[in-house]
Amino acid sequence: MQEQRAGAGEVLALDLGGTKIAGAVVREDGTITARSQAPTPANEGSAAIITAMAEVIQQLRSACASTPAGVGIGAAGVIDPATAKVVSATGTLAGWAGTDMKAELGSITGLEVRAVNDVHAHALGEARYGAGVGTSQVMLLAIGTGIGGAYLHDGQLVTGFHHVAGHMGHIDSSYASGLECSCGRTGHVEAIAAGPAIHRHYLRLGGDRQVHDTQAVAALAEAGNPKARKALRTGALAAGAAAGSLANVLDPQKIIIAGGMAGAGDMWWEALCEGFASSTIDLLRATELEPARLGTDAALLGAASLWWTQD
Amino acid sequence: MQEQRAGAGEVLALDLGGTKIAGAVVREDGTITARSQAPTPANEGSAAIITAMAEVIQQLRSACASTPAGVGIGAAGVIDPATAKVVSATGTLAGWAGTDMKAELGSITGLEVRAVNDVHAHALGEARYGAGVGTSQVMLLAIGTGIGGAYLHDGQLVTGFHHVAGHMGHIDSSYASGLECSCGRTGHVEAIAAGPAIHRHYLRLGGDRQVHDTQAVAALAEAGNPKARKALRTGALAAGAAAGSLANVLDPQKIIIAGGMAGAGDMWWEALCEGFASSTIDLLRATELEPARLGTDAALLGAASLWWTQD
Repeated sequence: MQEQRAGAGEVLALDLGGTKIAGAVVREDGTITARSQAPTPANEGSAAIITAMAEVIQQLRSACASTPAGVGIGAAGVIDPATAKVVSATGTLAGWAGTDMKAELGSITGLEVRAVNDVHAHALGEARYGAGVGTSQVMLLAIGTGIGGAYLHDGQLVTGFHHVAGHMGHIDSSYASGLECSCGRTGHVEAIAAGPAIHRHYLRLGGDRQVHDTQAVAALAEAGNPKARKALRTGALAAGAAAGSLANVLDPQKIIIAGGMAGAGDMWWEALCEGFASSTIDLLRATELEPARLGTDAALLGAASLWWTQD
Repeated sequence: MQEQRAGAGEVLALDLGGTKIAGAVVREDGTITARSQAPTPANEGSAAIITAMAEVIQQLRSACASTPAGVGIGAAGVIDPATAKVVSATGTLAGWAGTDMKAELGSITGLEVRAVNDVHAHALGEARYGAGVGTSQVMLLAIGTGIGGAYLHDGQLVTGFHHVAGHMGHIDSSYASGLECSCGRTGHVEAIAAGPAIHRHYLRLGGDRQVHDTQAVAALAEAGNPKARKALRTGALAAGAAAGSLANVLDPQKIIIAGGMAGAGDMWWEALCEGFASSTIDLLRATELEPARLGTDAALLGAASLWWTQD
């Protein structure tokens, strides 16, 4: 891509996950001009995480052509976009809840900080730079280790009253009756359709205990193994029915499918579409299901875009 | 309520359903100062319906203290709020699809017309004048002959890309496995939790065939009849689980429960709350479920409010 406005509108983007902090210098057209990353000191408390984030920011800053507009962050946990504070977090990041990213990173780096939840950032990135370009009512469904997502209304994230919106994995599913979910409830779609759930289902069906993960189950399924096919297909049907159910409620122009399962192959996609058709009302049957395009860069681009779409 | 600005901001509101056209003169504070209604000529085609609506409008107009700001309509069918056109409609209103309410009623009455779907109008009314006052992220779930609803994001309706959003009855439910839904799919929550579904479930459980409707099933349930209790309780659990699932996705501040089942009694409400708790993630357990307050006036007030919240 031609460099038309060197440095104009550069943003330092961070994607904070449980194992690493990915960082990039992003331009308004979505070009990434530099990258940096560091391991997340997940067990060392909030101050250590902030220090590690600040170091990634300083490395990125040195790669900027001019003063960056600010820092955009997609972070694990429930994040209040108005304040960039961590409202709550799971045990994955010790002491993370309550962290004020804006104040703490701002005082170290002297830069302004904006932040959203990492899945929300992922959806913003795909909506604005990936599979959702040109649409303004978009749903993203990320199906991987867990299932999450986001809905964009008129191009803006619906984060909800407590900023908790987007727990798409935690909806009742007829395919998951009686199965325990990661959230402690039972019967949610994540308990049958997330990656690890498909592996567990394969084992419940009497599958080979030497098959250690979902990728191996998917490979067996493609090779024609009946138990693997059934586990993969059931998960995809359930995910599709969930997508259809949410389409009936939200009527998105497009549904973007992200996460590891989106790469599980044709058999998974066909069952996903079958499940979608089984649940979607006639008026919405033509709604597009489309794979995400940006991979893990989506969260970085979405986080950066906080600087180009807010005041 | 004291009359502070006689006539100021009066709107003529219409609620067009399959059997009647209800109309009211509404002030910005939500006061209804006059009413009128007429039967819906549901089988006579679009022109007859428009004529009947225009007559109700003229009656209301004669009761106005001054020139009304315009006409606000909540109408059956899929309505495009930007144009007040009927995008599509079921067979309940013959020939209704394609009707241009703004142009046709405008040319007869000389008044400006704004319109939304009737369930969307109902949600706007409850959100702005009823149980949702003071909240901006609100979900309404109307559980009656069917199940529908709406979500308001920052106080504005999410009508979706095709204006079809709000089909809350058409989400996958573990309580409805294998049951045929009114939409032609199977397994949707409406097929077990809507009023007629509860009656059908009572009969499937071997209930007395002389019991002719849901109200009678609810009365039997309150009197301790085991089959009636089971049918009522299952429907309420399913509706509650659906509300909880959607809370996990949308994170509303409040969920307003409207429709005939909301008046079905304590047993129904207790099971609704139990179903809600069974599905809602810990972060959202405190989300309020609250009965609607305005009855059928909600759609009139919501339709009128189109004049006070749009440009």
